[in-house]
Amino acid sequence: MTKLVVPVVLAGGHGTRLWPMSRSARPKQFLELVGEGSLFQQTLLRASDNERYSAPIILTNADYRFIVAEQAQELGIAPQAIMLEPSARNTALAIAVAAVAAVDNDEDAILHVLASDHAIDAGADYYKAVDVAAQAAANGRLVAFGIEPTRPETGYGYIAVGEDLGHGVNVIDRFVEKPDLARAQELLTNGGHVWNSGMFMMAARTYLSECERLAPETYAAARSAMAQARRDLDFVRLDGAAFETAPNISVDYAIFEKTNRAAVLPVSFAWSDLGSWDAVWKAHKPDQDGNVAVGPALMSNSRDSMVVSDGAHVVVDGLQDIAVIASTDAIYVGRLSSAQGVGQIVKALKSDDTTRGLTEIHKTAYRPWGGYSSVLSGERFQVKRLFVKPGKKLSLQKHHHRSEHWVVVKGTGEVTIDDKVILLSENESVYLPLGCTHRLANPGKILLELIEVQTGSYLGEDDIIRIEDEFGRS
Amino acid sequence: MTKLVVPVVLAGGHGTRLWPMSRSARPKQFLELVGEGSLFQQTLLRASDNERYSAPIILTNADYRFIVAEQAQELGIAPQAIMLEPSARNTALAIAVAAVAAVDNDEDAILHVLASDHAIDAGADYYKAVDVAAQAAANGRLVAFGIEPTRPETGYGYIAVGEDLGHGVNVIDRFVEKPDLARAQELLTNGGHVWNSGMFMMAARTYLSECERLAPETYAAARSAMAQARRDLDFVRLDGAAFETAPNISVDYAIFEKTNRAAVLPVSFAWSDLGSWDAVWKAHKPDQDGNVAVGPALMSNSRDSMVVSDGAHVVVDGLQDIAVIASTDAIYVGRLSSAQGVGQIVKALKSDDTTRGLTEIHKTAYRPWGGYSSVLSGERFQVKRLFVKPGKKLSLQKHHHRSEHWVVVKGTGEVTIDDKVILLSENESVYLPLGCTHRLANPGKILLELIEVQTGSYLGEDDIIRIEDEFGRS
Repeated sequence: MTKLVVPVVLAGGHGTRLWPMSRSARPKQFLELVGEGSLFQQTLLRASDNERYSAPIILTNADYRFIVAEQAQELGIAPQAIMLEPSARNTALAIAVAAVAAVDNDEDAILHVLASDHAIDAGADYYKAVDVAAQAAANGRLVAFGIEPTRPETGYGYIAVGEDLGHGVNVIDRFVEKPDLARAQELLTNGGHVWNSGMFMMAARTYLSECERLAPETYAAARSAMAQARRDLDFVRLDGAAFETAPNISVDYAIFEKTNRAAVLPVSFAWSDLGSWDAVWKAHKPDQDGNVAVGPALMSNSRDSMVVSDGAHVVVDGLQDIAVIASTDAIYVGRLSSAQGVGQIVKALKSDDTTRGLTEIHKTAYRPWGGYSSVLSGERFQVKRLFVKPGKKLSLQKHHHRSEHWVVVKGTGEVTIDDKVILLSENESVYLPLGCTHRLANPGKILLELIEVQTGSYLGEDDIIRIEDEFGRS
Repeated sequence: MTKLVVPVVLAGGHGTRLWPMSRSARPKQFLELVGEGSLFQQTLLRASDNERYSAPIILTNADYRFIVAEQAQELGIAPQAIMLEPSARNTALAIAVAAVAAVDNDEDAILHVLASDHAIDAGADYYKAVDVAAQAAANGRLVAFGIEPTRPETGYGYIAVGEDLGHGVNVIDRFVEKPDLARAQELLTNGGHVWNSGMFMMAARTYLSECERLAPETYAAARSAMAQARRDLDFVRLDGAAFETAPNISVDYAIFEKTNRAAVLPVSFAWSDLGSWDAVWKAHKPDQDGNVAVGPALMSNSRDSMVVSDGAHVVVDGLQDIAVIASTDAIYVGRLSSAQGVGQIVKALKSDDTTRGLTEIHKTAYRPWGGYSSVLSGERFQVKRLFVKPGKKLSLQKHHHRSEHWVVVKGTGEVTIDDKVILLSENESVYLPLGCTHRLANPGKILLELIEVQTGSYLGEDDIIRIEDEFGRS
């Protein structure tokens, strides 16, 4: 292959079925669940070979833009674009937007459309399939990757594989909705059906022309969203009004089920959508008792169970088919085999004011300049751990109800207090009296970490008067 | 009644079956498990009516002396004595020591011997029983409180109730070891058997004379341990060599099974030894689905289960007969009905260097001057929350490997740094450079709370050079 493929990474999902680890402010794709790095980072790395791929186009939404930017930066990967979807409009539009951007650069661009929250064993088989699909896409095919089933799985949609089109791809006879167990067993036994992986390969131009013909509203919305897009720092903000006009429809329904250019490439590398905790369990290859432990755990007289822990030591004693998912502030305990029901639990927690927060945020909040974790809260004080990325600065701000103490524990901080500027290095501290104007910056080359002790009568995040801000928040 | 009864509170136990809440550094009796206050505090309160009781004698060991003192002080209860057992020698000796102390004050002293880790519904029935028992004790009886059984319990020993002795007490026909279920059912059906509560009433003099006659080694050890005891602050340190000579034997075996002065008082107030998590569940009166939640929890489609949580929100989804006990650093998940097996788990955790700490200490450590919690640990820093009781001071100390920042968040601190003394009030901070001699004291009338940020290459508790200490630790 000579032509570089453009990875299109879809990273805007809000998945809740891996609660309490996955939360709306930091969903599944940004978590380290299987293997090293987050699923999103693993996705980027799988498409980072520069003999085969150009820089990626990433689709996400405004809430996740800083996580996306930070996680890409951690890998030293510079995306072609990070596009922000103003509202959730499913895959047909997201891919259309990426295609419009890609043909702008290169009218023969080939897109490899990737979910950012799947686990894939990307060995030689995988890349061979990528190359076969890219060739078929260059020949005008819209290619879906179909995974040869290894078990009667009821959690996935299937694709019926039709006649051979040459070059390793086949006609798509039809899409099959998630089957019940009997039907899944039948599909496995009879053969000729593969799992619909949600991964595609296509020429941007082919996709756009089929989209224009078969899903004209989606096509028009994509063109208009791109035409009116605004650059904001490193991000492309797609136009909100344009998005509103588009139907909420997946690429399978909008395009693949209608076009005669669709093809399926049956593959047999290991793949999982990690759609629920039992899928995570399978992806971890359970031990001889059927147990998986991610984090500190003791499984005693227990079988077919999984522990995922953020820190606490979890003991599972004399149980079978149990999932214990322990984050710092929430713990889920249920049947591993029924873990698809977590979505219902999240709904219940969301509907209650006192527990909604548990479905939304983690104890660490990410900000354009870095982030902070709440470490301890008392009656009239609060302790936070702040981290500031090299070269970044927080807004110039003041508070009406609190004073702050900062102790630098790593790196160097530049602190502006009213009209003074001082440098603080490791082990130095500063006091910011109530009402003073202050700003924190990291002028160094390494991460700045500090402990902030706030004292005062009111310590809410809304007691921040922003006087000046690099990130458009003042 | 005119004579005041002396409460003798046995608070030296190390119970592990309520792990992870109960740990050797802060076992069950000092935890709030059922109702308000710790079980030890509830025990003190039940015996605090000064029309009926004098100040208590408390038996514990050196490790728990500060918790005992603090928890008594919280209630405004000043013990007659806090006696420290140099080694664990069971109840016969502990009671003998208390009896020696009591007869020194009043040769007719009546002792009410109380376990400090039981739950009791102390209504009018309870106090009526106390008065009846005290009268029988004054008449020379050694009285065991026997609880009328309400279910075929296999976790308790039983007492066979013999002929009526008048004054509401009966002869003890014999002690029955913990029965199996069939035998427990038989005892319940046939009647005439009560649970051995481990609570006793006796004249100190009667006990000592029976002890001298029936358990002379125990008697001699008690006399000698008291004769050589040392006063240490508010504590009585019993003599270690004397303790070593005594057999490890319970009062049931040593005295009650042999003496002809034993009597049982059958009572029917609600009582539990809270010996395992299922007993805690029973004591909490489960809801209509059989569930109990202590701490934030959601029980969804679940039955006959219990959650105890120190803070994290626990979701139990679609399960039955499950115990989830969630402390900050360890979580137990097992069958509630088999929760007696927690002791085995604790043994397994103890045998592994990496997990032993989880069975020993909590995140909060208690010291004579107050205590501290570890809040956050980083690579070269650590954040602790310290609390110092009014009027107390820490040792004069220095560190070779760390500097410290202190931020006062409540109360007033007096800080000595080398030869300077400064006062810090709320919201003020101080820096203690590596190698400086320093001391923290609370000169105020309210608790002093501060946040300590340590930075340095080594942050272990053993990098403390104590130059001077109020508590005999320099």
